[in-house]
Amino acid sequence: MVQATTMPRNETGIKAAVARLAAQFGDRLQTGQALREQHGHTTTWIETQAPDAVVFPTSTEEVADIVKICADLAVPVIAFGTGTSLEGHVNAPAGGICVDMMRMDAIVALHQDDLDVVVQPGVTREQLNTYLRDQGLFFPIDPGANASLGGMAATRASGTNAVRYGTMKDNVLSLEAVMADGTVIRTASRARKSSAGYDMTRLLVGSEGTLGLITEITLRLQGIPEAIRSARCSFRSVDDACRAVMMTIQYGIPVARIELLDELSVRAANQHSGLELPEVPLLLLEFHSSDASVVEQAQTFAQIAGDFGGFDIAATSTAEERNKLWQARHDMYWACLGLRPGAKGISTDVCVPISRLADCVSTARAKAEEMGLLAPIVGHVGDGNFHALLLIDMESAEERSKAEAYVSWLNELAISMEGTCTGEHGIGQGKRPYLQRELGETTRFMAALKAALDPDNILNPGKIL
Amino acid sequence: MVQATTMPRNETGIKAAVARLAAQFGDRLQTGQALREQHGHTTTWIETQAPDAVVFPTSTEEVADIVKICADLAVPVIAFGTGTSLEGHVNAPAGGICVDMMRMDAIVALHQDDLDVVVQPGVTREQLNTYLRDQGLFFPIDPGANASLGGMAATRASGTNAVRYGTMKDNVLSLEAVMADGTVIRTASRARKSSAGYDMTRLLVGSEGTLGLITEITLRLQGIPEAIRSARCSFRSVDDACRAVMMTIQYGIPVARIELLDELSVRAANQHSGLELPEVPLLLLEFHSSDASVVEQAQTFAQIAGDFGGFDIAATSTAEERNKLWQARHDMYWACLGLRPGAKGISTDVCVPISRLADCVSTARAKAEEMGLLAPIVGHVGDGNFHALLLIDMESAEERSKAEAYVSWLNELAISMEGTCTGEHGIGQGKRPYLQRELGETTRFMAALKAALDPDNILNPGKIL
Repeated sequence: MVQATTMPRNETGIKAAVARLAAQFGDRLQTGQALREQHGHTTTWIETQAPDAVVFPTSTEEVADIVKICADLAVPVIAFGTGTSLEGHVNAPAGGICVDMMRMDAIVALHQDDLDVVVQPGVTREQLNTYLRDQGLFFPIDPGANASLGGMAATRASGTNAVRYGTMKDNVLSLEAVMADGTVIRTASRARKSSAGYDMTRLLVGSEGTLGLITEITLRLQGIPEAIRSARCSFRSVDDACRAVMMTIQYGIPVARIELLDELSVRAANQHSGLELPEVPLLLLEFHSSDASVVEQAQTFAQIAGDFGGFDIAATSTAEERNKLWQARHDMYWACLGLRPGAKGISTDVCVPISRLADCVSTARAKAEEMGLLAPIVGHVGDGNFHALLLIDMESAEERSKAEAYVSWLNELAISMEGTCTGEHGIGQGKRPYLQRELGETTRFMAALKAALDPDNILNPGKIL
Repeated sequence: MVQATTMPRNETGIKAAVARLAAQFGDRLQTGQALREQHGHTTTWIETQAPDAVVFPTSTEEVADIVKICADLAVPVIAFGTGTSLEGHVNAPAGGICVDMMRMDAIVALHQDDLDVVVQPGVTREQLNTYLRDQGLFFPIDPGANASLGGMAATRASGTNAVRYGTMKDNVLSLEAVMADGTVIRTASRARKSSAGYDMTRLLVGSEGTLGLITEITLRLQGIPEAIRSARCSFRSVDDACRAVMMTIQYGIPVARIELLDELSVRAANQHSGLELPEVPLLLLEFHSSDASVVEQAQTFAQIAGDFGGFDIAATSTAEERNKLWQARHDMYWACLGLRPGAKGISTDVCVPISRLADCVSTARAKAEEMGLLAPIVGHVGDGNFHALLLIDMESAEERSKAEAYVSWLNELAISMEGTCTGEHGIGQGKRPYLQRELGETTRFMAALKAALDPDNILNPGKIL
């Protein structure tokens, strides 16, 4: 694993905090090594830095109590959801208390008439959508993993539906959060729009637990569309596929998803999910609208794709066939790992203006080949966001070093194309140097915000900045 | 006029700043009384508090120079666009320097392939849309007034199209801003989505010039739809109209605009714009889609409206007829003033969850009648946002006091319905007490952000907090 930066530990404070929390929480405060390591270990490529204890609150008041105890003693507090973040977001470089939110999993209030729902942070997106299905509603943000909604808000997650429905920043109406001094705030009313002061909602969304702990989330919902149609189309090159994407977006087709798999990813999907797709670059699409309109949209896309040499075009409105394709897309992380058993996956996450996408993806592929790296690419290409998953033997210092060089090179490339080093995974520990390179002096003002809201740096220290 | 709070003046600093700015800017630094008063006086109902000088920069570097001089001398700096804000946003309660951005009116770069444009803050929305028309693109946010895009970003403006296209928060990709120490920052890359650290873009959008001066804006654009169809429908009661709105939204019809005029507003529009609409509550709608789809959407709406007693339903795709109706809607502020010549208009701006809209509007109307106030209501009802425009003789202490009591009562009502005191006008000077009542302790953290980014409180002091 790649070594993570450590920070000085407040041993006395930590001991005292664990004792005080144990007194209040009994067996909902755990210090066993395996459990602690699970709460530092995630899908990340960065080594585990376990917290000193894990506490399982069941209410906002309990979260506030935990933060107050830790604030008194200047002890780090790290919020934890499903542990599916990729950049070491839940590591404890200075030790401290992990707050596992997964027992706060209540759906607090569904407002069908307002198309919103209030949930606790431990509710997962699949749990929410199962609950909503009978009401004809759904929550569109889909990062692949069955992540907790608190974690998704904290990392400003998005995923395959973002091209149509936006990211978490667009779908959170309001938050309840525990701030660094233990104060519980609500960031906004339940109105669908507001000009009431600074946008505390958007400040906390994407703050990765460094400015406050999210204890309740009010989310916008969508009606389940009358018709859903999926389509796939193969291309002779990634470049052709990207150009077809660009034209589709410019043409104004309101695609709900438009995903790219390069030939390596298609091979991985064939192997992992038992598909028989041509092993060339592939676009997967989904259209949400009325019965007539989804067919029209799919046909217009097919025409555009044809102009760029697209072939083996297939479309279906059958739920079973759709689900098979999209399940394969969801399983891509694991499918790609199957291309090199035993390897660890390091995912890049650059996002560039869509006019630069074809160039960025093609250059990224050529560079990986040149460096001898196995790096299947999948992407939410409607947003200009794609992931190269580097398959690395982490025991090999040479491979680790090559991977780091590649990640650094690709992030710089995206930044030079007016893009970002992270479209949706967040900064965590892993991308801190790139945030500096991307935003420069702006990070000084981010640091001022952090110091203002968390003067003792107890909330998820060592992340973002 | 209603008196505004004053703040202590730094006379020595102001004199020195005016002298230093005069030396650098020559006749682009003006101190004439009429011009200064124009820059404090806006469409607001709050008395004018003129700045001590108005400076007209033409570049970001010049804005940075101005801020550095003012920072050195602890002198207030107030950004100014078209002066169409409603809550005393550009008043100078502690005096200081007004920075008129209207000579920074360049369209810096149009990225057609990326559907975005980079503009200086003095570009107005009409100027931008005129420029874009030949490209088949448009910028959808339309607050009615031909406001500057810098001002619209600073107040998180929205307007008639927000139900479909969102508010400024959803349509600003990135900002360049001059911070309180004169540092120029860029808040984000030009990528369509990002998880790169704290959302500085959304923090500055809606900050009303209190955290930084916006010097460049990257905006998302939309393709001009293949077809635009407008519709109108009369109702026997505001309640029926609101229920039809709620059902239309729940039904998932992607209306581009859905606006309510109550009977007083319709009378005002008839008088001002020479229309002959039935003087009963009216909904005005617009649909953006393909030729077939706008007709289908308008028909579905007509069916829903019929269920709520809607009558005199008319729809048209002719540009001339559409423009006549929407021009009347845009002119409502002036049309309503015509109902009582000589009166001043005080606009409320509450926004509530849509399930509470019918109740909120009906109660607001009944209360105005009960208090003997003339208060036509217009609203962006698809978002739950409406304006009661109180027509007040500002010479009458009794009327002023009634108006203040009504505004306070309505804001409290909206807050009690989980809504906000401001859907789109912002806090400025006028709504500060209501922000406190709406968000309570949250405002303490807003104050911490302000102190962190502007420790000497030089950026538009006396606003929001």
